Order: sequence, then C-alpha cells, then structure tokens
Amino acid sequence: MELKNRILKIAQEAKAATRNLSLISSEVKNETLKNMAAALRKNSGAILAANQKDLKKAQEKGFSPAFIERLSLNEKIIDEMAKSLEEIAKLADPVGEIIKMWKRPNGLIIGRMRVPIGVIGIIYESRPNVTSDCIGLCLKSGNSVILRGGSEAINSNLAIFCLLRKIATKFGIPAGALQMVSTTDRKAVDMLLGLSQYIDLIIPRGGESLIREVAHKSKIPVIKHYKGICHIFVDESAKLDMAVKVCFNAKVQRPATCNAMETMLVHEKIARKFLPKIFLEFKKARVKIKGCSQTKKILKDVELVEEKDFYTEYLDLILSVKVVKDIDEAIKHIAQYGTQHSDAIITENDKNALKFLREVDSAAVYVNASTRFTDGYQFGLGAEMGISTDKLHARGPMGLEELTSYKYIVFGSGQIRT
Amino acid sequence: MELKNRILKIAQEAKAATRNLSLISSEVKNETLKNMAAALRKNSGAILAANQKDLKKAQEKGFSPAFIERLSLNEKIIDEMAKSLEEIAKLADPVGEIIKMWKRPNGLIIGRMRVPIGVIGIIYESRPNVTSDCIGLCLKSGNSVILRGGSEAINSNLAIFCLLRKIATKFGIPAGALQMVSTTDRKAVDMLLGLSQYIDLIIPRGGESLIREVAHKSKIPVIKHYKGICHIFVDESAKLDMAVKVCFNAKVQRPATCNAMETMLVHEKIARKFLPKIFLEFKKARVKIKGCSQTKKILKDVELVEEKDFYTEYLDLILSVKVVKDIDEAIKHIAQYGTQHSDAIITENDKNALKFLREVDSAAVYVNASTRFTDGYQFGLGAEMGISTDKLHARGPMGLEELTSYKYIVFGSGQIRT
Repeated sequence: MELKNRILKIAQEAKAATRNLSLISSEVKNETLKNMAAALRKNSGAILAANQKDLKKAQEKGFSPAFIERLSLNEKIIDEMAKSLEEIAKLADPVGEIIKMWKRPNGLIIGRMRVPIGVIGIIYESRPNVTSDCIGLCLKSGNSVILRGGSEAINSNLAIFCLLRKIATKFGIPAGALQMVSTTDRKAVDMLLGLSQYIDLIIPRGGESLIREVAHKSKIPVIKHYKGICHIFVDESAKLDMAVKVCFNAKVQRPATCNAMETMLVHEKIARKFLPKIFLEFKKARVKIKGCSQTKKILKDVELVEEKDFYTEYLDLILSVKVVKDIDEAIKHIAQYGTQHSDAIITENDKNALKFLREVDSAAVYVNASTRFTDGYQFGLGAEMGISTDKLHARGPMGLEELTSYKYIVFGSGQIRT
Repeated sequence: MELKNRILKIAQEAKAATRNLSLISSEVKNETLKNMAAALRKNSGAILAANQKDLKKAQEKGFSPAFIERLSLNEKIIDEMAKSLEEIAKLADPVGEIIKMWKRPNGLIIGRMRVPIGVIGIIYESRPNVTSDCIGLCLKSGNSVILRGGSEAINSNLAIFCLLRKIATKFGIPAGALQMVSTTDRKAVDMLLGLSQYIDLIIPRGGESLIREVAHKSKIPVIKHYKGICHIFVDESAKLDMAVKVCFNAKVQRPATCNAMETMLVHEKIARKFLPKIFLEFKKARVKIKGCSQTKKILKDVELVEEKDFYTEYLDLILSVKVVKDIDEAIKHIAQYGTQHSDAIITENDKNALKFLREVDSAAVYVNASTRFTDGYQFGLGAEMGISTDKLHARGPMGLEELTSYKYIVFGSGQIRT
C-alpha cells in the first residue's frame, strides 16, 4: 500500500477505536497493564535480541557512545519498563471522574466530567522505553495512541509494541487503539502531522530540534517539552547551609536532566560568605564555574561567564554564576534568560518568597527546595508523559489528568431557557 | 512604517506588557472595568457616529440586511456592552487563585496557582460589541489582547477601542496590554498568525469559514468555536409533556444560536404519541419539519429529510426528525452527524440517562433539559469568550478560568532529591 494510505489507515483506525476505548472499565485497563508488565519480563530475551539488531546497526553507522547508551536495553531497564506499567495500573483512573458539581438557581445540576482527549500521536527519538511508557499512559487515560519512534530503534520499538498490543487485544482493548508507524520513511511524520481530522494532540519527545520541527509542521495541536534553563536565587536572608545543600543537589545530583540548575544567582550582600563555601563543594564534585566579574573577584580561578552562557542549557557539570543587587534583578534575569521551566529562591524572608512565587512565571516555582523535584512522581502525580513548557492545556509534569479533556454534564427536570 | 513592522511592534508591545499586567491587583482591574462601562455610556454619541460611517459604507456596498443588523449599534446595545463590563468586574479574579494544594511525604507543599496565559489574539467579524467584551475578559484574566475585527466595522471598533484604552491607561494598566490592528489589510491577519514567539493563543470568533481559515494558517495554538448541530433524543420512557416543552424551547426560543436543536431523535415506541403532540406546537411557531420515512408515516405533510440535512446547522425554524429503534441508535446517530457541542436525552430511565451522559462525547450533555443552556452565564461561569468545540485546554463555555494557565508553586524547607 502507498505510504500515504498506510498512514491514513493508521490514523483512521485509531480514531475509530476511541469510542469503545473510552468505555473500557478501569478494572480491565489495570488487568491489561499488569499483564503487559508480566509479558515484558517474560519476553525480555526477544526484546533484547531485537535491541541487539538496532545496536549493531548504530555501531556500524558510528553513532556516539551517548546515543548508543540511550538506545541500549538490558534486563534492568526492561524490568523498570514493567514496573512503570504496574505503577500506572495503580494510579486512579481519570476517565469519568467528576471534577466538580454545582447547582444553579433554576435547579439544574451541572458538573464537569473528565473524558479522554481522543487520539494522541507521540513522535520520539531513540529511547525504546518510551514505547511502553506511552502505551501505558495512553491506555489508562483512554486515549488511542500512534507511536512514531526513531528509525535507529525500530526493531526494539516494534518488538515492544507488538508484544503489548497482543496483550491489549487479548484483554478486549480495541486493536485500533494502539498504533505504530513501522516505516522509517521520514515523510511519514509529515503526513501524520497533517491529519488533524483524526489526531487530536501531538507530543514530541526528544531534543529541541525535533520539537521545533514538529511544532512548525504540525496542523494538529502540539504540547511542547522544551529545555530547562533553571535558576536558583540565593537571597540575602538565606540560611547558607541550606543554600549550599539545595544548590549542590540541583546542579550535581543528575546534571543531564531538564530540571537541573544551570544558573545560580547570588545576592551581593552574602556573596562573599556564600560563594567560597559552595565553591569547595562544587570543586570536589568537579563542577566548572563560569562567573560574572563580581564572582571572579571572590572566586579567583573561575572562567568569566559570557552572555550566551546564560542562554545555555549545559546538561553537564558546568554552572553559570551571577551576583545580583537584589531580588528584582534576580527576577528580571530569570525573565530574560530563563525558559519558564523550574526556578527557586532560597530565603528566610516571607515577603521575598511570596514575591518570587508571584512574579516568576515558570512551570514550577520553588521556595527553599531543589529544582530537581519537577517530576510527575515527585509531585505525587505518578508516571508522566513529560514536562510541558507550554501554557495551554498542560504545564509542568504531564500525568494522566493532563491527558484528559472534560465535558459538562447537566441534570435537569424539564428546565427550559426563557 | 511597513505593515510587517507595525504588526510586529503590536505583538512585541503586547508581550512586553504581560509581566506588569499579570501583577495588577483585582481592585484596580475592577475599578478600570467599571470606569470603562461608564465611559461607554457617556460617549455613546461618538461611538454611534463612528458606527454610522461603517453602516453607510456597508449599505453602499450592498451588504445583506442580516449583515447590517449585526453591524448596527444603538443606545441599548451600548448599554449592554457597559453592563457586560460591569458583570466582568463582579466576577472573581482567577489570577493568583490556588486551585489545590497537597503535602508530599518529604514535607514539600505543592500547589497549583492560576496565572494569565499571556497574549491572546482575537480575530472576529462584524459585531462591534465583541471589541469591548474581549477587552473586559482579557483585562480581568490578566492577558494582553490583540484585536483584529472585520474591516466593515473598523470605525466602530476603533472608537470603542480608543475610548477603553484611554480609561485603561488612566488606571495604570500598561498601554501595551490593549492592542488593535487598525489596518483593514488582510495580510495583517496572516502576519499575526505567524508570530508564535509573542502571541500565546488565537481565538477566532465568527463563521465557520473564518475559523477554518485561521486554524489552517496559524502557527499559534487556536481554540475553535465551530458550529453546533445539537440533538435531543426523546427516549421511550420520556414524560411527553416535558419532552414537548424542552424540544420546543431548544428549537424555537432562539433558533439562530449554536446551542439550538437541529435534529430531534424519537424512540419508535413513543413516536406515534409524541410526534403529533409536538407537531401541533411546532406548526403554531411555523417550524418546518423534515422527517425520516417513519416520521412521514405519522406526520403526513412533512418533507422527507435527506442525509445531508443531518449535517446541516439550520440556525432557523427548520428541524430534522428521525425515529430511532433505541438509545444505541440515537447515540450512534449523534456520534456520526453531531458536532460534539450540546446534546440532550429526555428520559425517566436512570440507566439510559447515565448511558447517554457517559457515551455521548459532547461539550455539554443534558438529561431532561434544553440544550439552550450551553452558555457561560447559564452555567454560572459569567461572561464568556465563546463556546469551545475543541477538547484541548477549554471545552464548552470559555469563561475567565479558561483564559488562564497555571503554575506549580512549591514550599520547602531545604528538601533535596536523593
């Protein structure tokens, strides 16, 4: 079949499955998820064999070690994929939940009920575990899913997908609800992005260039997960021990994540005391500091930070440091250079804490805690689809609730409008 | 200045105003709205004079009477515009509202706080009252607004806009927060729709072709307000008097609205009793019936309905009628021909009521009430920006809350991630 018709058929089947899928009970969905987890563990050999094919090709093509690492599966990762599905099974089913209800003076009782969005297309790069995570989240939230993974992971993705779809259909999930674009032809993505009559939402997962390309081409709404240039502002009144502990954690605990600190802003009144203190810790952890001219007066041997560094998501053990006059300068810096992802203030001054919370417009704004907590599990939302840097529909960690829409339900006793 | 630069400047000014605008207190916003209302009443003469210019041109160009009517302002309509601003002043300010808060096992307190979306672009047709409604709703929800009205209403729109902006700046609202594209050059719209770095959301208000065109061209997220092909299903167990009253209201009370009934579905077991009963009422109100073959057996003199009629939003005293075998056929018909706007069931059978609520996926689903209630005021949400037929971000009546986003706020005492 011609590529265009194949993609169209996938999208139409996914749409056609939405009605029946939205009516599947929580019990059946949870049973399916648990059996999917068991199947992953039982068939790990076959999945790893498929992964080997992908790895061999990637090595032949000379991909970077970091790329190969992202592509690699092992028993432990497969076990984590299974655990993730089991976690999703334990989460409350958002579909059918009544969010609120109220009564109108004419006796009408009005409520909002959560419903699935419909068909969600996921365009992702080389990590094959995204395949099972997205299937689990979309199934639980009652959405059909169309998966389009990176061509380098095609064998791994297909092995996981075919296995999970087999389990799904065995438990009565409509087969159309789980779709994978199995061609590695890049035109397939462009075609998907034009099918707004069948696909309700596109979520790209991967690097910034992938997300920008998808957002630019798509005729379907896209929820974007851009980078995080996260800041911590150490205020004049900060407890310095706490500031050291939190800033160290935000930079060092897992520097390659989007919620790691990239720029530390320090109130000028405490810079002389605070900077040497944290510098000792950073030095032990081999964090490279790029400081402003005032920082350099205090910490002699650091490199001078350039303006472009403030726009850089290092994802590495590198940190931009700037001494600021006051909280206003800190907030202004964050507004100019930040990416509205996660930003924190360390302070003992309640007025400044509230000012920071109010005036910094980021997906997550912290007082006296590490930015590393921006994560579905850490917030108590459970597994997440990603961290939205958009402001429409979903912002910050996107869990099951954010994969739903709602409808108004109205109970009357013959009311008419006059 | 070149058109492109003028449009760019408008968008940049609107974006630059967002930060200060989001921090304006509720008191100042409400005072501004009340003074805007007073100014509209006081300056109605000047507004009506501007409107006369538009009307004269429209008449010269030979526009239809319906078009001229939509374009026309009078003292009463201006008073309603003023009242609408006063109503918006009375509504609760959504900005800064904490939606929910919870505590995590590690002591972190996490909450969701409503924040403005940012910059909202409104592209609308000939009704000049949209100008003041949108200014009021965007101001109260803390969003900058860029207005682009129909070229035929340009003098009326500018008169209203300049007056309201004068009041806004007098009360300390940043001037950049209120913008109007004053050129009637159509290229201006295309330019606006490309400025995704400055404009966060586009809401087109008008006919289907305008909305489709905007959605097709836009690089910015669009919330669409498409047509309503609304159904009422009269179930076997319906109280016939209630069914007559509700169906009559939904068709006749204001047939030109998107929440009026366009198709009535009747259970075959009660069709012989119900149809002649309601036909008498419809006849008095001069409603033209287009019936299916079974309907025609009961109501002799009605026209035969064609399949294309089921896809038609009449917006007039015309009604499609179909006799169905059962609730499943009714739900299937609604899924196939409906527009997911507003649909109702009239029934005394609780099981069927819940089945209908669950399985009909429309923005508003009713049991025993008229579809005409789908409206921000009627739902108790206050003034509305429109009725979204989309499923992302906002569905159904779009009030102040739907014009906001949220951010996570997190209070800690030095928590770090391990």
